[in-house]
Amino acid sequence: MIIGAIEAGGTKFVCGIGNEDGVISERVSIPTTTPEKTMTEVVAFFEDKGIEALGIGSFGPVELDQSSSTYGFITSTPKPHWAQFDLVGELKKHFDVPVGFDTDVNAAALGESLWGAAKGLDSCLYMTVGTGIGVGALAEGKLVHGLTHPEMGHIMVRRHKDDTFAGRCPFHGDCLEGMAAGPAIQDRWGKKGHELEGSPEVWEMEAHYLAQAIANYVLILSPKKVIVGGGVMKQKQLYPLVREKVKEILNGYVQHEQILERMDEYIVAPGLGDNAGLAGAIGLVR
Amino acid sequence: MIIGAIEAGGTKFVCGIGNEDGVISERVSIPTTTPEKTMTEVVAFFEDKGIEALGIGSFGPVELDQSSSTYGFITSTPKPHWAQFDLVGELKKHFDVPVGFDTDVNAAALGESLWGAAKGLDSCLYMTVGTGIGVGALAEGKLVHGLTHPEMGHIMVRRHKDDTFAGRCPFHGDCLEGMAAGPAIQDRWGKKGHELEGSPEVWEMEAHYLAQAIANYVLILSPKKVIVGGGVMKQKQLYPLVREKVKEILNGYVQHEQILERMDEYIVAPGLGDNAGLAGAIGLVR
Repeated sequence: MIIGAIEAGGTKFVCGIGNEDGVISERVSIPTTTPEKTMTEVVAFFEDKGIEALGIGSFGPVELDQSSSTYGFITSTPKPHWAQFDLVGELKKHFDVPVGFDTDVNAAALGESLWGAAKGLDSCLYMTVGTGIGVGALAEGKLVHGLTHPEMGHIMVRRHKDDTFAGRCPFHGDCLEGMAAGPAIQDRWGKKGHELEGSPEVWEMEAHYLAQAIANYVLILSPKKVIVGGGVMKQKQLYPLVREKVKEILNGYVQHEQILERMDEYIVAPGLGDNAGLAGAIGLVR
Repeated sequence: MIIGAIEAGGTKFVCGIGNEDGVISERVSIPTTTPEKTMTEVVAFFEDKGIEALGIGSFGPVELDQSSSTYGFITSTPKPHWAQFDLVGELKKHFDVPVGFDTDVNAAALGESLWGAAKGLDSCLYMTVGTGIGVGALAEGKLVHGLTHPEMGHIMVRRHKDDTFAGRCPFHGDCLEGMAAGPAIQDRWGKKGHELEGSPEVWEMEAHYLAQAIANYVLILSPKKVIVGGGVMKQKQLYPLVREKVKEILNGYVQHEQILERMDEYIVAPGLGDNAGLAGAIGLVR
């Protein structure tokens, strides 16, 4: 089967062709500018590929309720030009094939459960820590939507005792994203993450926030695997710091060997690397 | 169909007989003492009822993994005599019928979705604020188990600015349960909740903690309805306080009319009152 896949991000649309086993044979990256320009290029890429289905994982917020008149729309994004854009509708005009649609992070969670770090599990989280913080969730074999879709990047967290940074989320100030996404690191320390590699206090503080969030996710969703990726996590020293702090916070309360003894297999990097989103988009149409 | 139902709590086992429509025709309350004494009475109650199936919602932690050798056990509870007790196994010895088993709060969430405040919805939370704080979750039509089962009562919360109480969770000190369950109220203020009815500062502080937790649950699970019950919520003035603070915390970020405009229908008391758990236990075998 020839499946088209789109990972629609705020910076770029990654488009690819794959099969039902998640094998990707071709991919291109198209800058996210205006819907008109970007979509013209996206449509041109798929036009002669003979796709039989199309899967889309998109930045959000998006409308996932199939009974809604705005199903398939990117809704209230602050990104210029893209608010209330009918992403699925626009593609349906050009391709008369079944379409699967979900958030970028839900797609990545699905991709990881099909072919990546959570392979074979019916439950996992996919967290990306970059320009923003987003988390997708697979629970009991299904991607979690609910009322809208999870927005776990915006949960409230306790401040680090040495942190005087005000936070930069326009909605919540010092929520998780406001304190721990890439731009918060840059604003707080005056340098980009990769320039701060040799400053342990930076990563101790970052791990403080990420571990709190993950501990709460574990207590609330009880995922079988927590996958953490995104630009900020290129700082690999974060993984052991985060694992240790999650264990400290839970303090033996969740009695499962994964958490008590095998934390290094529980909180992990994406198994599919940068392909999680694209593979997940393929998974959405399976 | 004659269905036996058990709501197994740390204080009492409520046993009942109902049908597949959740109509309860008979119920008794049996004190939770030792497994031997309590179970003898439970078995005696059901013995001549001709039950064709048995549903059990239990205090926990419990083992829900059907492939585990300890499936159906109450596991690491601090409650004397009950740790590692094979609840399902003991009942199976006496009743050769299909058994449904889950946590008490998951059962209540299911009951509310079948016949109560979340009727017809495929997603809801059931939160009980009493001696402890427990939350059950239905997501995408399924009760959430995952690795073990959710333990949402133990998430980290931000302290209220005027609160010097240390918290009383033996695992986490000032987690949600440590700060906001009934015994925390009593320890902090030196009186029981019902004696503090006329003290608005008590309920403002209590709402501060509950609203934070609910806002996090909404961001993480995106439930279609949040049902809050339990002894502490007999203080009905808490409901509007909690709703208002959840709205303040989310600050317009989750753009759904339920949250923006109809919060009084979104965060609600149990539709089944004190029968949610028992009805949910019936639901577990449907």
